[in-house]
Amino acid sequence: MEQVATNVHWHNGEITRTDRENMLSQQGATLWFTGLSGSGKSSIAVALEQALAKRNKLSYRLDGDNIRLGINNNLGFSAEDRTENIRRVGEISKLFVDSGVIVLSSFISPYSNDRDTVRKLHQDNDMPFFEIFVDCSLEEVEKRDPKGLYKKARSGEIKNFTGIDAPYEAPSHPDLHLNTDSQSLETEVDLILELMEKNGLLAAPTSQRNKES
Amino acid sequence: MEQVATNVHWHNGEITRTDRENMLSQQGATLWFTGLSGSGKSSIAVALEQALAKRNKLSYRLDGDNIRLGINNNLGFSAEDRTENIRRVGEISKLFVDSGVIVLSSFISPYSNDRDTVRKLHQDNDMPFFEIFVDCSLEEVEKRDPKGLYKKARSGEIKNFTGIDAPYEAPSHPDLHLNTDSQSLETEVDLILELMEKNGLLAAPTSQRNKES
Repeated sequence: MEQVATNVHWHNGEITRTDRENMLSQQGATLWFTGLSGSGKSSIAVALEQALAKRNKLSYRLDGDNIRLGINNNLGFSAEDRTENIRRVGEISKLFVDSGVIVLSSFISPYSNDRDTVRKLHQDNDMPFFEIFVDCSLEEVEKRDPKGLYKKARSGEIKNFTGIDAPYEAPSHPDLHLNTDSQSLETEVDLILELMEKNGLLAAPTSQRNKES
Repeated sequence: MEQVATNVHWHNGEITRTDRENMLSQQGATLWFTGLSGSGKSSIAVALEQALAKRNKLSYRLDGDNIRLGINNNLGFSAEDRTENIRRVGEISKLFVDSGVIVLSSFISPYSNDRDTVRKLHQDNDMPFFEIFVDCSLEEVEKRDPKGLYKKARSGEIKNFTGIDAPYEAPSHPDLHLNTDSQSLETEVDLILELMEKNGLLAAPTSQRNKES
């Protein structure tokens, strides 16, 4: 286990994001997992969360379970509601990044525009954002179909289901492109940790940062 | 500076709130500051945030600046929108508590029902919630009027202003009742820290907790 930073000097002004990140010896960031239902977004986030905890890094998962049933329980699955769903999740992710936490946001988030809005929201505030495409063929997710949703979508019992009768716009330039048809969970977690290391997220911020918030 | 907990054993399941709290040596909790505009909610939250940082505790402030301009930028000040504003803030507070963070939520939150909804949301999930009434006479806040809002409300330039032409329902049983007419900021912060100490929030959770989330 690492010791928390000992070089933090609290000033009299407001505590900043950098102060919190120094306390946590990490950088707040959003890792955004997008992909079809059943592609493995949540499994990867859960495994990554464990790997980060082993390194004593504080992360938090946002997903349908704590968002759709909570703050967004007044939203459905129309195109308009999907956009508002992702907008709110983007804003919540930003708040967590500001608090110093590493956010693991797992949402189908089928529209490029919506994901780009979330990316811009972070970049405009000098906050790290990484789009991770959890790619899996429709053939494979339909075979997995852990909740039986594809079957219901094919039969028409469920409408507006992404990949069946609602669009999925694949990322054109994701920060990381995973293929869960073929890769192991372990490989996927390693690739993400490598991305995080390379971007300095697993250590306190350097003094080069210009903006504080 | 304290060292982070060294008695944490990561398991293979999902990382729980208790795991995160052990890592942070604190308990996630919401401190909810309610009171008139200009009563001192934000000043107290800022001072408390500093005091907590000195103790190496991770807190995060939610207030109009990062909520009204962000996730709730599609809400106004009608009774209905105020209720939705507080509902969303309550849900976001709950997510932060789940992440292990101490949340300092400063909102006028004039309606008892809305505050009670947030309290229930926390209590139903075994999450600490403390309502802190930042009490200040209307005479005094009108004298302070740091943003000139009361003057505009009196002249009718601003409508639906709490305390002038919109109601403020004072808490009947707050967990802490501060009086900013007479108390010093230092005293107020000490009273809150005492409340937090008494409720064990400034240490890792005890093993007696039954529910994990």
